[in-house]
Amino acid sequence: MTDFAATKAMFDLPPGVLYLDGNSLGPLPRSAPDRVAGMVSDEWGKMLITGWNKAGWMAQPMALGDRIGRLIGAEPGHVVLGDTLSIKVYQALAAALALNPERRVVLSDSGNFPTDLYMAAGLLRSLDKGHELRVVAPEDVADHITDEIAVLMLTEVDYGTGRMHDMVDLTRRAHAAGVVSVWDLAHSAGAVPVDLARAGADFAAGCTYKYLNGGPGAPAFIYVAPRHAGNALPALSGWLGHDSPFAFEQTYRPGTGVARMRVGTPPAIQMAALDTALDIWDMADMDDVRARSIELTDLFIQLVESTCPMLTLASPRDSAARGSQVSFRFEHGYAAMQALIDRGVIGDFRAPDVMRFGFTPLYIDHEDVRAAAAVIADVMGNRLWDRPEYQVRAAVT
Amino acid sequence: MTDFAATKAMFDLPPGVLYLDGNSLGPLPRSAPDRVAGMVSDEWGKMLITGWNKAGWMAQPMALGDRIGRLIGAEPGHVVLGDTLSIKVYQALAAALALNPERRVVLSDSGNFPTDLYMAAGLLRSLDKGHELRVVAPEDVADHITDEIAVLMLTEVDYGTGRMHDMVDLTRRAHAAGVVSVWDLAHSAGAVPVDLARAGADFAAGCTYKYLNGGPGAPAFIYVAPRHAGNALPALSGWLGHDSPFAFEQTYRPGTGVARMRVGTPPAIQMAALDTALDIWDMADMDDVRARSIELTDLFIQLVESTCPMLTLASPRDSAARGSQVSFRFEHGYAAMQALIDRGVIGDFRAPDVMRFGFTPLYIDHEDVRAAAAVIADVMGNRLWDRPEYQVRAAVT
Repeated sequence: MTDFAATKAMFDLPPGVLYLDGNSLGPLPRSAPDRVAGMVSDEWGKMLITGWNKAGWMAQPMALGDRIGRLIGAEPGHVVLGDTLSIKVYQALAAALALNPERRVVLSDSGNFPTDLYMAAGLLRSLDKGHELRVVAPEDVADHITDEIAVLMLTEVDYGTGRMHDMVDLTRRAHAAGVVSVWDLAHSAGAVPVDLARAGADFAAGCTYKYLNGGPGAPAFIYVAPRHAGNALPALSGWLGHDSPFAFEQTYRPGTGVARMRVGTPPAIQMAALDTALDIWDMADMDDVRARSIELTDLFIQLVESTCPMLTLASPRDSAARGSQVSFRFEHGYAAMQALIDRGVIGDFRAPDVMRFGFTPLYIDHEDVRAAAAVIADVMGNRLWDRPEYQVRAAVT
Repeated sequence: MTDFAATKAMFDLPPGVLYLDGNSLGPLPRSAPDRVAGMVSDEWGKMLITGWNKAGWMAQPMALGDRIGRLIGAEPGHVVLGDTLSIKVYQALAAALALNPERRVVLSDSGNFPTDLYMAAGLLRSLDKGHELRVVAPEDVADHITDEIAVLMLTEVDYGTGRMHDMVDLTRRAHAAGVVSVWDLAHSAGAVPVDLARAGADFAAGCTYKYLNGGPGAPAFIYVAPRHAGNALPALSGWLGHDSPFAFEQTYRPGTGVARMRVGTPPAIQMAALDTALDIWDMADMDDVRARSIELTDLFIQLVESTCPMLTLASPRDSAARGSQVSFRFEHGYAAMQALIDRGVIGDFRAPDVMRFGFTPLYIDHEDVRAAAAVIADVMGNRLWDRPEYQVRAAVT
C-alpha cells in the first residue's frame, strides 16, 4: 500500500495553502532545491561541458522516459523526454499520418486542449494535401471512427471538465477501422492508471509539470509503440534524433526506436528537477493513487454540492468516467476563483466559466478536501467573490 | 570600456581549469546558483501556479528576447525565446519559404551545423512540393544566390572552423535576387558583433548556452524582421503563440509580431539561469568583446603554431573572417583533446579531426591563453595523447 502521509511529507507546501491546482503545476518536492542547486553548482559549475557525459545529461531523456513509462504502461525504452507537449503532439501526429497516407481526415474532439488542435491544423495546412481536422463532441467520437479517418487524436482526460475517454475501447475501434491513434496524456500521467501497451496505443505524449511535479516548464514526453518505433520518420528531424549525432554527418539518419523523436539539446536543469520529483512517484502505486483520487473527488463533489447550490458540476458524476479533477461551472467563476485563492484555496479558472480543482493524492488528503470545501462554502454562501478586486483578469488565468 | 577583470570575476571557474569551450557550453555565473535556488524555492515553491503571473515566467520569453536582441542588433520586441535552436531554425525556414512560394530551392552550405540541414531536409520532405536543399561549399555561396533560390539558410560562424560569413554582403545579394534569408547565430550571439537590423536579415535564430552562458539546455531564440512579423504564419502553431492563449479558442489566431513564434510552456527554471547570465552581458560592450577576442585568438594561433608543427590551422588566419574560436586539424585530435582535458585545458573535438578552442573575453584573458598554449605544447611535443586511456571515445564528443 502506498503511504500517502509519507508522500505528502516529501512536498514543501506553503503553510495556509490548500493546493488544488497540481493538475496545472505540481508543487515543489522538498528535495528539488538541493537537487537543482547541486546540478547547477556541481555539475554545470564543475564538470562544465563534460557534464553531458559525466553527469549523464545526454542520456537523461531516455532514462527519465523510462521512469515515466512505468506510470503509463509503456514498454521499457519506448518513451523519450524533450521539448514541449505541443511539439511532441506534432511529432506524434505527423508520424501517425505517415502511417496512413491514403486517408485525409484527423478526428479529434471539442474537449481536446486547444494547442493540440492548433498544432494539428498547422501541420495539416503545411502538408497541403487536403486533410481535414474533424472536431466532434467528445460523446460522438466513437461513432465517427470510420475507414475515412487517418488518425484519431484525443486527450484522454478533458482539461476543462475531467471527462475521461475509454482509451482501450476507442483504440480498439480505431484499429478495427484502420485508424492510427495519438493520445495526449497531459491530464492522465500520474492522474489515472494508463496502460499504453495493453490498450495498443500507437503514439502518446504528455507533460511532466502537472501530476508528475517536474516544475514550471518541465519537458514533455513522447511514446511510440514498439511496432512503429523503427519506421516512424520524425517530422522534426533534429540532430539528437540522429543515429550518430556526434558524427556530424550532413544527412539525417534516424536513431534507434523512440530516440529518433529527440530534436535538440535537452534542458538539463529542468531535467534535474523532474528527476528528483519522480523519486516520489517511486513510492506510489498507481492503483492506490487512483482509488484515493476517487475518494477525494467524490467527497469534494458531495461537500460542495451540499453547500453551494449556485455551482453546477461540470465533471462526470461517475468516477469511472472522470480523471483526477473536479470542475464546476459558475457565471462569476473567475472572480470566485480569485476570492478562493485569496483565502488559500488554489484552483484555477478556465474560460468561459469553469472553476477547476485538481486532486493529487500524493499530497492532498481528506482533511484538505474538507477544509477547502468549507472555504468554498464561505466564499459562495457569503458572495465574497462579488468584490471589485476579484473582477480584474490577469494575463494568465 | 568593458572591464574584463570585472566580468571574469562574475564567473565561478573551477581552479586549475582553463576553459576554452565556452563556444559549446558557457561556464557558471557566480550568481546562478542563488538565482536558480531562489526561483525554485521562492517562486515555484511559494507562488506555485501564480508564478506564471507574479514571478513573470509567462512574460520572460519576450523580456529575455529583448536582452538578447541588444547583442545582435535586433529591433526591440522582435526576438522571443523558446524551444531549441533546431525548432527555431525550422520555424524560421518554414516562414521564410512561405514568403517565397514560387521558388523551390533552399541554399545552404556544407559548413552549416548538421541539425540545420536535417531540420531543413525534414521540412522540405514533409512539404512534398519538390523542394531541393542545395548544399554548396561555404566559399561558393555567393555565386549560388540566384533567382532560383527561395531561401538562403546559413550559420554565420562555422561551428567547426570558426569561418565567418559576411552577413551584410550575403543578405544584400539575397535580397537583390529576391531571396529570403535565415541566419543561425549559434556561434555569433555574444561572439561577434551582429547587427540584424542593419544587415536587413529576414529571420535569425540562435542558442543561449554557448557564449551567452545560459546553462546546459538553455532555450533558443528567434528573430523575425519587423516587416515580416505581422504576416509570418508559424509552422508550429502552439497555444502560447496564439493571440489569446487563455481564451482557449478552438481555432488558432497568431499573436502579435514575433510572439506568434512561441509554441508551448517555456522552461521557467532554465530562464532564471539565463536571466542572471545576461546580467554579465549588461557589463560588456560587443565591440570591446570583439577587439579582445581577436587579440586572444591571434595570440593563441601564434603560440600554438610556433610550438606545434603537427597541428594544422583549420580556422581563417584573417581575424576579420573568423569568429571567436580557433580550430586545428590533427589526425589524433580526439585523443589529444582528452589528454588536454586531463591537464585542465578544456576544448572539444569535432569529427573527423578538428580540435576546437573557444575564446570568450568575458572570462578568458591573455594569461589564460599563454598557459593553455604551454599545456598544448607539452601534450603535442611529448606525444602525451598517445596513451591508451585517451583513445576510447565517449558518447558525447
